[in-house]
Amino acid sequence: MPLSDAEKTDIVKTAHMLADAARVATLEHFRSEELTAENKVTTHFDPVTIADRAAEKQMREILAKRRPSDSILGEEYGATTGTSGLTWVLDPIDGTRGYMSGSPTWGVLISIADASGPIFGIIDQPYIAERFWGGFGDAGVAGPMGRKALKTRGPRGLSDAVLYTTFPEVGSPEEGAAFVKVKARSRLTRYGLDCYAYAMVAAGQVDLVIEAGLQPYDIHAPIAVIEAAGGIVTNWQGGKAHEGGRVLAAANREIHAEALAVLNS
Amino acid sequence: MPLSDAEKTDIVKTAHMLADAARVATLEHFRSEELTAENKVTTHFDPVTIADRAAEKQMREILAKRRPSDSILGEEYGATTGTSGLTWVLDPIDGTRGYMSGSPTWGVLISIADASGPIFGIIDQPYIAERFWGGFGDAGVAGPMGRKALKTRGPRGLSDAVLYTTFPEVGSPEEGAAFVKVKARSRLTRYGLDCYAYAMVAAGQVDLVIEAGLQPYDIHAPIAVIEAAGGIVTNWQGGKAHEGGRVLAAANREIHAEALAVLNS
Repeated sequence: MPLSDAEKTDIVKTAHMLADAARVATLEHFRSEELTAENKVTTHFDPVTIADRAAEKQMREILAKRRPSDSILGEEYGATTGTSGLTWVLDPIDGTRGYMSGSPTWGVLISIADASGPIFGIIDQPYIAERFWGGFGDAGVAGPMGRKALKTRGPRGLSDAVLYTTFPEVGSPEEGAAFVKVKARSRLTRYGLDCYAYAMVAAGQVDLVIEAGLQPYDIHAPIAVIEAAGGIVTNWQGGKAHEGGRVLAAANREIHAEALAVLNS
Repeated sequence: MPLSDAEKTDIVKTAHMLADAARVATLEHFRSEELTAENKVTTHFDPVTIADRAAEKQMREILAKRRPSDSILGEEYGATTGTSGLTWVLDPIDGTRGYMSGSPTWGVLISIADASGPIFGIIDQPYIAERFWGGFGDAGVAGPMGRKALKTRGPRGLSDAVLYTTFPEVGSPEEGAAFVKVKARSRLTRYGLDCYAYAMVAAGQVDLVIEAGLQPYDIHAPIAVIEAAGGIVTNWQGGKAHEGGRVLAAANREIHAEALAVLNS
């Protein structure tokens, strides 16, 4: 059953309320001296901050009041099953390593999905007070330079393209080797932005983001925002990407096709 | 002859005026669709934007009026020789690649040096409206979370340290290999922040930045800000770093000594 306009309006309003709450909760500890990190997984560096948990908790409280029949999948507190067929997917701090080192390129990821995948999403950067959203036929940004529609870049060859990924190893040795093939043909490759790189694809500043090893909550919101802005996000086989893993986000179908061919060459 | 308090006050005021002017000039073209890039050096990607030149021009006009006897060294328009023994060192957009891809981690670098090196500096991030300054016994930041003193981190071992550099190759193969030795012993290595990484050392968020191939105008302002906040910046031999080249910026003498030993091991 398609969503009514009233339902869409309520979803968008709720998503912004979640982002507002997470903005306060995450900034409370950002760049503080007492910031403590725990290691969730002892085999690699993956700090979970007090802020991360506080933000998700507050978002879940809002959802419990406003949207009790929706399901929730959150990075910190796992899955809660509802009855509506809609699932909120929450990553209170995407880019915890950036957060821990003071960088302003981590973000709060909030999205809602139906059985087909994400239908509305928000990438919020609390420190800059900048919010990117997309879905239901609208894509926009509100931040230091005001409010503006989001539109991805037009086609250009890989040799003129700007490519981002979070860290140079990308993933497994095979994944790293596939990435290097695209990198070698791109004009410029940059690292380290976490979810902010996806926002830059939506904003028409970056042509490609290629990552591997993602969780569903890392990519749901970027898919919604980028696709509403005219871009395309798939896995490395050209299929749906919202279950995570290997992701290729592109400004348009042409450069997506070129990058996909090189990734698999 | 030591500078009088009145002279120091005038220098600080002038530096902030330059930063205010550059903030407007650089933001005028940031994330604009018509942004054009020229290649200064055809062998590698080094775009110079209209904004870059406009910002330096405006800063030079302010200096011509307020401080006509000082020398100027600017990234875009070279050297102008004065008679005061003081030299303004200007990099209107440090991190042009970041600027070109919409990242909020480029910065305007403004500093003033005497024969001994930088004595006051500013790292300004126009999009975030965030300014870091240091010199004459003061180090501070003004930005989204208000105004605060800057203080670098206390000592911790390399195995607990956060290390930044702008891109993973760092420089020549030998320079890259030396960097990798430090990286292998650090807790976390991140890429891509340009001058913002130096600001994060001053702000107590990052322990080390290691770079190579820098120009004097890339490092003058960071030296002033970091040293005023309690840190130390040298070349890879432990000597003065303001002439550029290979740079090691550290939060404190202890981690500086440990990183220096590993770099040269």
